[in-house]
Amino acid sequence: MSEQLVESLRGLTKDVVSESIETLKNYLRLPTISAQNKAIPETVQFVVELFEQAGGEAKVLDELGGNPVVYGFFPAGSKGDSTKTLLFYNHYDVQPPEPLNEWNSEPFEPTILDGKLFARGVSDNKGDLIARLTAIKVLKQLDGLPCNIKFMVEGEEEIGSPNLAPYLVKYKDLFKADACIWEFGGKDEEERVNMVAGIKGMAYMELTCAGADIDMHSSVGAYVDNAAWRLVQALATMRNEKNDILVKGFYDDIDEPTELEKEVVANLPFNEEAVRNLYGLKRPLITEAKGVDPREAMVFQPTMTICGIESGYTGEGAKTVLPKNAKVKLDCRLVPGQDPQHIFESVQAHLKAHGFDDINVVLINGQKAYRSDYNHPFVAHVLETASAVYEKEAVLAPNSAGTGPMYEFGNQLQVPVVSTGVGWVESKAHAPNESIRLVDFEEGVVHMAYMLSGFPIAMNQHSLETSK
Amino acid sequence: MSEQLVESLRGLTKDVVSESIETLKNYLRLPTISAQNKAIPETVQFVVELFEQAGGEAKVLDELGGNPVVYGFFPAGSKGDSTKTLLFYNHYDVQPPEPLNEWNSEPFEPTILDGKLFARGVSDNKGDLIARLTAIKVLKQLDGLPCNIKFMVEGEEEIGSPNLAPYLVKYKDLFKADACIWEFGGKDEEERVNMVAGIKGMAYMELTCAGADIDMHSSVGAYVDNAAWRLVQALATMRNEKNDILVKGFYDDIDEPTELEKEVVANLPFNEEAVRNLYGLKRPLITEAKGVDPREAMVFQPTMTICGIESGYTGEGAKTVLPKNAKVKLDCRLVPGQDPQHIFESVQAHLKAHGFDDINVVLINGQKAYRSDYNHPFVAHVLETASAVYEKEAVLAPNSAGTGPMYEFGNQLQVPVVSTGVGWVESKAHAPNESIRLVDFEEGVVHMAYMLSGFPIAMNQHSLETSK
Repeated sequence: MSEQLVESLRGLTKDVVSESIETLKNYLRLPTISAQNKAIPETVQFVVELFEQAGGEAKVLDELGGNPVVYGFFPAGSKGDSTKTLLFYNHYDVQPPEPLNEWNSEPFEPTILDGKLFARGVSDNKGDLIARLTAIKVLKQLDGLPCNIKFMVEGEEEIGSPNLAPYLVKYKDLFKADACIWEFGGKDEEERVNMVAGIKGMAYMELTCAGADIDMHSSVGAYVDNAAWRLVQALATMRNEKNDILVKGFYDDIDEPTELEKEVVANLPFNEEAVRNLYGLKRPLITEAKGVDPREAMVFQPTMTICGIESGYTGEGAKTVLPKNAKVKLDCRLVPGQDPQHIFESVQAHLKAHGFDDINVVLINGQKAYRSDYNHPFVAHVLETASAVYEKEAVLAPNSAGTGPMYEFGNQLQVPVVSTGVGWVESKAHAPNESIRLVDFEEGVVHMAYMLSGFPIAMNQHSLETSK
Repeated sequence: MSEQLVESLRGLTKDVVSESIETLKNYLRLPTISAQNKAIPETVQFVVELFEQAGGEAKVLDELGGNPVVYGFFPAGSKGDSTKTLLFYNHYDVQPPEPLNEWNSEPFEPTILDGKLFARGVSDNKGDLIARLTAIKVLKQLDGLPCNIKFMVEGEEEIGSPNLAPYLVKYKDLFKADACIWEFGGKDEEERVNMVAGIKGMAYMELTCAGADIDMHSSVGAYVDNAAWRLVQALATMRNEKNDILVKGFYDDIDEPTELEKEVVANLPFNEEAVRNLYGLKRPLITEAKGVDPREAMVFQPTMTICGIESGYTGEGAKTVLPKNAKVKLDCRLVPGQDPQHIFESVQAHLKAHGFDDINVVLINGQKAYRSDYNHPFVAHVLETASAVYEKEAVLAPNSAGTGPMYEFGNQLQVPVVSTGVGWVESKAHAPNESIRLVDFEEGVVHMAYMLSGFPIAMNQHSLETSK
């Protein structure tokens, strides 16, 4: 019965997928770079029209500041269960496309090559929104929608969702749901769909050292202090070569993982050779320095990453300049229990204690980590339906190595959250030549449709269990 | 008699200076950026025409590679001493103009404001060539040229004159002279002309750390090593907060200054407050950390300056990327005795010894330091004529804190070298809004004309003294 349903869904999906890809291409042509405040109003309008054209209702929420949040609603069909609601979380903003010279095609001119669709934002996260809307279209052609479906599509995910929390508080009832499917996911190097039931947090900081009002001729380096040297020396006190973060208080308050979580993580697939080849790594994994399992590091350990550093002349050849200032962008991925504000204050205190109180620190964005209850039936339902649709068994980790505003959802909406999507191992989210494979898009549509079909029953089992 | 001569030269200069400024402006409109290989042929042609229009002879030397070297020659007049020759060293190339957004006017559209002429290269070193040619014009209007005058105008000074040495070897006789006036100089914050009889050397290196073939999502920082962190950690082992360079062998082979040189340096003017205000310094001088006199550091101590560092995303806002590579530009100013090749090899050995043998080092350019004999009568002649022309007493240091290919001159041509020019304390060589003051240009013309008038007699005294 369920196999037959999956086959029907596959057939219906095949019929509509090329039209969906055309819609996706139009969506991708909008250069919605939140870090640079680009193309926001037109993208909001585009998303509203997507919902309306799919027969849903749309609302633009913008009175609490920041880029608008788009709410979408599709009621259960006449054969469906209108007491159950699934919420999809997506974002319409994308990362900046730089470095531009490393793209093989224009980042905002979607290009299909060898069964892949290349464009900035296609895997993170515009492709998933269109896949989910396609699943709705497919279900409507079959028996109608099995439950209510809601969408939250925000526009500041790539800059850390700094304005989302008040919307979640104010519109808690509007977004009320029984469970939530998060924005992303994709297949690993062995074609297994990787999903997560939680997410790391983040403290993204910019440190600036100001040395002078103007760049100077480098000959004055004999007596004038150098902002770039100061920043380098300050950074060198903050982390060692083994990836230990030396900032006092950084590791405070970390929640100990449960035994189940540890077990799940110990059994996650991890193919080092595939990772090395994927990125073209030149060095051993940093986890080797301490003999840590990379799976554990990925899920349970916080990080401090230099995302960018800049000072002085960086063009071709030799310019003999003593730079007036230097800055670095630091991205700390946090685990459950850590507080971004505390991390920020710890970095400030560390710099002061090490004689670098002239280095200014700004917390660009902060988000707490989140883990759903791994025992929730929704978690099992998403995993089981994935395994029925995809050829290889799906994998579900307690939390991702990446970040998003899931903590606010978990706290405000009190829902289990699982993240899955249509990416693949070489999707290159946040990097040049971002892509999805068309075949993964199609399978992702089928999985979402199939997951939705069984959603009311799975959640009813949950209600029974919890009312026991 | 000499006062009267100075007054005549002042009057003649006043008559021709505005025409010279127009010529200079045309010269400055050529964006001769050697680091970016821009506008070389047209600038060479322009310099040739400058010489020919001033009644001299010009030759373009280019068969030994690199940007052409222009030779200029003006024979002594009938009343002059054709057994004596003064050589001027200049360069027609300029530094890159970046950062462009900090210029108040277009870098290659010369702009006069409040008695100052702004443009890239006006103080370093296009203004000086035109001032020297104007001095020749003035002398011709008086009694004719007092001696032979030669010019070497090269086109790779701003990238370290990597191809100059073979020209000096091959054309040793063509450039043969009794003394040399070097490219630059200018007034300090108390309006004293600052000159030097020598120059620091340089080892300009680029260090690159490659971590991967592509930029990665920063979430992989849990297990993937970070090229920017590696470069930061490597740099932190190379220099401490007191400006001590920790690279083994760096301080080898330094020539001990003579007692006369030490005495001269101890008496050089240095106005810390003025330096602080000029650059808008935010921190104490780095020399304070060890209680070193900044004058001594300037003349006698080598440096290691971060001129630029770059990795990952450096635009606005937050981009969560783990950079594929990182690079830094290091400028070491050397003192007499130090060898750039040895410095380069010492940095390589240091990195290897500290576990950073994956960091690649390239020596972009290397030049040795040079000091003329401070007792040479030419040195005294330039100093005395400057003091007669300028209101304030001139200052002459054993060597500059800056660099140029003077070592090759000293070695090949066996001449004393003094550097002086038409800059001022806020000339901002190598920085945005580079300028000279028109009044300094005019006085610089008078000084060169006056210095040339007395040159044969001063050098005859020298010949007598050395033949004793």
